[in-house]
Amino acid sequence: MHFMTALKGAWQQRNSLLCVGLDPDPARFPAHLQDKPDAIFEFCKQIVDATADLACCFKPQIAYFAARRAEDQLEALIDHIHARHPDTPVVLDAKRGDIGSTAEQYAVEAFERFRADAITVNPYMGRDSVDPYLAYPDKGVILLCRTSNPGGSDLQFLDVGGEKLYERVARLVAEDWNASGNCGLVVGATFPAEIARVRELTGDMPLLVPGIGAQGGDIAATMQAGRTADGCGLMINSSRAILYAGKGEDFAAEARRVALETRDAINAQR
Amino acid sequence: MHFMTALKGAWQQRNSLLCVGLDPDPARFPAHLQDKPDAIFEFCKQIVDATADLACCFKPQIAYFAARRAEDQLEALIDHIHARHPDTPVVLDAKRGDIGSTAEQYAVEAFERFRADAITVNPYMGRDSVDPYLAYPDKGVILLCRTSNPGGSDLQFLDVGGEKLYERVARLVAEDWNASGNCGLVVGATFPAEIARVRELTGDMPLLVPGIGAQGGDIAATMQAGRTADGCGLMINSSRAILYAGKGEDFAAEARRVALETRDAINAQR
Repeated sequence: MHFMTALKGAWQQRNSLLCVGLDPDPARFPAHLQDKPDAIFEFCKQIVDATADLACCFKPQIAYFAARRAEDQLEALIDHIHARHPDTPVVLDAKRGDIGSTAEQYAVEAFERFRADAITVNPYMGRDSVDPYLAYPDKGVILLCRTSNPGGSDLQFLDVGGEKLYERVARLVAEDWNASGNCGLVVGATFPAEIARVRELTGDMPLLVPGIGAQGGDIAATMQAGRTADGCGLMINSSRAILYAGKGEDFAAEARRVALETRDAINAQR
Repeated sequence: MHFMTALKGAWQQRNSLLCVGLDPDPARFPAHLQDKPDAIFEFCKQIVDATADLACCFKPQIAYFAARRAEDQLEALIDHIHARHPDTPVVLDAKRGDIGSTAEQYAVEAFERFRADAITVNPYMGRDSVDPYLAYPDKGVILLCRTSNPGGSDLQFLDVGGEKLYERVARLVAEDWNASGNCGLVVGATFPAEIARVRELTGDMPLLVPGIGAQGGDIAATMQAGRTADGCGLMINSSRAILYAGKGEDFAAEARRVALETRDAINAQR
């Protein structure tokens, strides 16, 4: 699967810009799953199966698995997505960043061990720290640009010669790092003016937009700022609002209900 | 163990500023270890036992374990260090960076699952992405500042209002983020002028200095630029030059020989 091809296919044929974020927190699981040895896999699998036809991609956040010694469940989950929902790409949210020789190892972790179709990467260490991911031309490499958290401004909003640091990152990626056409950028829904600026700087580059739902970002403002001329271009992520919509045995149906509402709220702005 | 107390103890009582980096690459292991199921643990354990009295800290690089599904061997290795070499702190080189709720999970991964004494963290997402690590007051939080790779200049060397981005990071950490006194900074040996500048901005803050050996950094220049008035203040990392000094069954003795040479070359400049 080529990530960009799969993503564009999902946007158009499945009519969805919704990215379902998989941040499994066992303390918030329904009671009937709590004691299962593979509760994390089981919870995520049910969410995935209930929402796959509504999503343009899935985004498992690796920290939630690593904190609980559950890398095997993450592997099983991604295998399940590939087997059951082969047209839905998987973005591994790992935000890795290291010198080239180490980045090669992280690329093996993400693309060969976990079989992700794309990974999020931190740009602070520069081009040669990103090259090992770019060397997989079928995989997506999604660089942090303007993150959704308040502290994102500490560095990303600094002026660097007449533009902000996040604008420089957007330009570097669009003008240099994206030679193989497999880059994307993370821009938070909590900053729609910056989404618009990044869209202006990057043409039709896919933007991964976290921050709606629990973090307070606005769907209409996000869409107005970031959609491309054909009404695509965005992976709008929702994690907690979907995952924990229900607390009982019907949690997957509740997740589907919220995913459907979110997809439709997004589509109302296309 | 309080990381800063342990590190200062190791600097003074063990008379070493050498950080032994553990980047295990099975393709470079001696032949007699290649087929063992726990080769990564066994290799690192022998390196650790051969060099612990020469090191102020160990720095396992998590990517090398994660790429090979060897998190269990990393856990066993850190347990071994704590049990056999309780005065030698462990810096988990993970360069994590994410929004607060996710950073909490990474902090659990590093400090509770792997029982590391310190972690490296990427500052690009700002203060609130670092707070969850700082909330463990006994643990060290070592922020990337001026990294040793060529591409580090892409962002870190940008001018932000009369200073470079890496200088702003150093000031933010020294003047704000370090309220509990548990922060350090990563500054590459390949940039001694920047080490001197960071030392000027941060007082006696511990600096983790990668880049000697395989990456070409110079020990004398590093020491001259970065040592504190009492001849400490630095964790000078060497990984590949020590780990792969020998290719035979005596690899641990060869690693010890190079670690001793490196420690002494550092101490000649104190």
